[in-house]
Amino acid sequence: MLGNFTYCNPTKLYFGEGAIKNLGGELAKYGKNVVLVYGGGSIKKNGIYDAVTAVLKERGKDVAEIAGVMPNPTLAKLYEGMEIARAHGADLILAVGGGSVCDYAKALAVSVHCEEDPWQKYYVRFEEPSCKIVPVACVLTMVGTGSEMNAGSVITNRETKQKIGHVFASEEVMPRFSVLDPTYTFTLPHYQMVAGIYDIFNHICEQYFSGEDDNTSDYIAEGLMRSVIRSGIDANKDPRDYEARSNLMWTATWALNTLIACGKATDWMVHMLGQAVGGVTDATHGMTLAAVSLAYYRHILPYGLKKFVRFAVNVWGVDPAGRTDEETAREGLAAMERWMKELGLVMNISELGVKESMLEELADVTLVMNGGYKALGREEIVEIFRESL
Amino acid sequence: MLGNFTYCNPTKLYFGEGAIKNLGGELAKYGKNVVLVYGGGSIKKNGIYDAVTAVLKERGKDVAEIAGVMPNPTLAKLYEGMEIARAHGADLILAVGGGSVCDYAKALAVSVHCEEDPWQKYYVRFEEPSCKIVPVACVLTMVGTGSEMNAGSVITNRETKQKIGHVFASEEVMPRFSVLDPTYTFTLPHYQMVAGIYDIFNHICEQYFSGEDDNTSDYIAEGLMRSVIRSGIDANKDPRDYEARSNLMWTATWALNTLIACGKATDWMVHMLGQAVGGVTDATHGMTLAAVSLAYYRHILPYGLKKFVRFAVNVWGVDPAGRTDEETAREGLAAMERWMKELGLVMNISELGVKESMLEELADVTLVMNGGYKALGREEIVEIFRESL
Repeated sequence: MLGNFTYCNPTKLYFGEGAIKNLGGELAKYGKNVVLVYGGGSIKKNGIYDAVTAVLKERGKDVAEIAGVMPNPTLAKLYEGMEIARAHGADLILAVGGGSVCDYAKALAVSVHCEEDPWQKYYVRFEEPSCKIVPVACVLTMVGTGSEMNAGSVITNRETKQKIGHVFASEEVMPRFSVLDPTYTFTLPHYQMVAGIYDIFNHICEQYFSGEDDNTSDYIAEGLMRSVIRSGIDANKDPRDYEARSNLMWTATWALNTLIACGKATDWMVHMLGQAVGGVTDATHGMTLAAVSLAYYRHILPYGLKKFVRFAVNVWGVDPAGRTDEETAREGLAAMERWMKELGLVMNISELGVKESMLEELADVTLVMNGGYKALGREEIVEIFRESL
Repeated sequence: MLGNFTYCNPTKLYFGEGAIKNLGGELAKYGKNVVLVYGGGSIKKNGIYDAVTAVLKERGKDVAEIAGVMPNPTLAKLYEGMEIARAHGADLILAVGGGSVCDYAKALAVSVHCEEDPWQKYYVRFEEPSCKIVPVACVLTMVGTGSEMNAGSVITNRETKQKIGHVFASEEVMPRFSVLDPTYTFTLPHYQMVAGIYDIFNHICEQYFSGEDDNTSDYIAEGLMRSVIRSGIDANKDPRDYEARSNLMWTATWALNTLIACGKATDWMVHMLGQAVGGVTDATHGMTLAAVSLAYYRHILPYGLKKFVRFAVNVWGVDPAGRTDEETAREGLAAMERWMKELGLVMNISELGVKESMLEELADVTLVMNGGYKALGREEIVEIFRESL
């Protein structure tokens, strides 16, 4: 049953090859001072930087740059950006990159005019902004996180060794607009592409695997999963397959813009396990999720059997005839495993650098959430990590 | 393949039993002068009128009323409302009712400050508003049209016998917020309830049946269809089944808020045929769609065979083993027919008052659109109506 909820998502999306042509018209709605945020510089090689700065120049914008935003954006980098954005009197923060760059831009948006320490306010006390929020916009170059259409922002504090995400309640934190051109993702290395594909799929799973009721959100989730499965196979064969890459971009957006969580409880336990691995190894996010998923799902399967049967039948097309519910459910996970292997995902945490001696340490830093089929005990967490080795 | 598109839908939705508690906080964001719009007065019997006016009073609003908005809101009624809203200096138009009331409120919103004749500007020339748009909000009491989260508005001109819909491009025409309480739909008569269920289902079909490519929009559409099928059966058995009614309310919103049309061509031909029947008989919209659907789909099946096979397998669970594609496709439509009969829908146009002598007249007023599998010729239209008798 759909629990009560509020839904609002005003981000305007310009989707498709050549969508950058809409950037100029949107920029005209904001003041002169733009802070351009990007990552390691790949946008300078593939021409996206030139395309964006040409539009900024054409529109007469005064641009300050924050370059070098890292895959897990740090608090130190946020402090650095706050000084730049304050000195520049930022009217708009334009993120050009993937989820990390976009996450960083949102953290910056709520911090520029914040009179307190943003880490304490937003990532320790989880408060909402009480200051003016600088508008954010995004030109997306990687898919997976859904950051282009949500109010989430993950920041890493290297001093305290904490990576904390805050999904802000205010829709003002969401990008005002995002430019989604699937061709911008064509040149991404294969490892990043498939990690992103699994990130999308797992975002959907995290919201799907709770409850056994009849809920529209789960039907939408199944549709999105089927689309990712098919497009993942196609993109893996040909990374320049526009149809596949555009579907992946669109499913990524809807996998994590709050829609499929409407009216549902969620525990995000694969992320809790994967982030523990990421904290210890600095491995790519999507691969940490892939490496722990099957052991986790096989472990909780008996507690959410009815849903795992539904997953097998509706998502993977498993025929339940002549099978027990448990056999059907396990065949669904087997089909998922075959798909993951076809994509070339990392299937165990050893490959990411985890050793058996580290399992207790991993369990120490794994947060346990409620809302799913089973609130894991410490022994279970160690066991899941052991099975993921 | 997803064609290029723009998506933006800023309507804030408060969903669930008791969601009316959010009305006061939202009203505080707007000026003092509220125009309250509603229909035939059922909201006075079921307590919704009292609940809404209590909040308006509590917030100190000065309220003008436009009552008696009819199922197909007329241009004459729009002119009448424009005078009321202008005299009142409307800061907000609050629609309390179903799709017609909400459609009317949106037509009013773009007409209050319009210096030209709104019929000519919006429904003949299909122009966008050039004047200030009065904010609209909605408390929904019937589901089906999706009007609570889109920029569509259908107005009927009785003098010219034209019923014309305009989906405005500006998201400013969309309701600023909508209150969606599934319990508000519990008391709807069975005939209206099932007509609404079919309206939802058909909205999804209209956007699904085009193209044979691989497109995320179609996967989402399949999820929504499966949800409507299941919830329709449950609600038909027990109209006070909250789970079913809440799923129906939520699928109705997403069936027609532009999401599943993203990147697709659509021809809306069932609506074109059904609206012709509605124009001649004044029958309930959802029933006119039900009565022409099967003859139409069976007619175009050979032109979109691949998609009808997919529909049969993915939506209706038809097993394609041992069947030709055509047999699989036809079995899908047979399953759909069984579901429609179980709901108690009107399955032919004779029951709505159409006689064989009227078929040519119906064909005269049926608009033919492109974007689907087959642009119908006049003889085909007559034949579909004949098979629908």
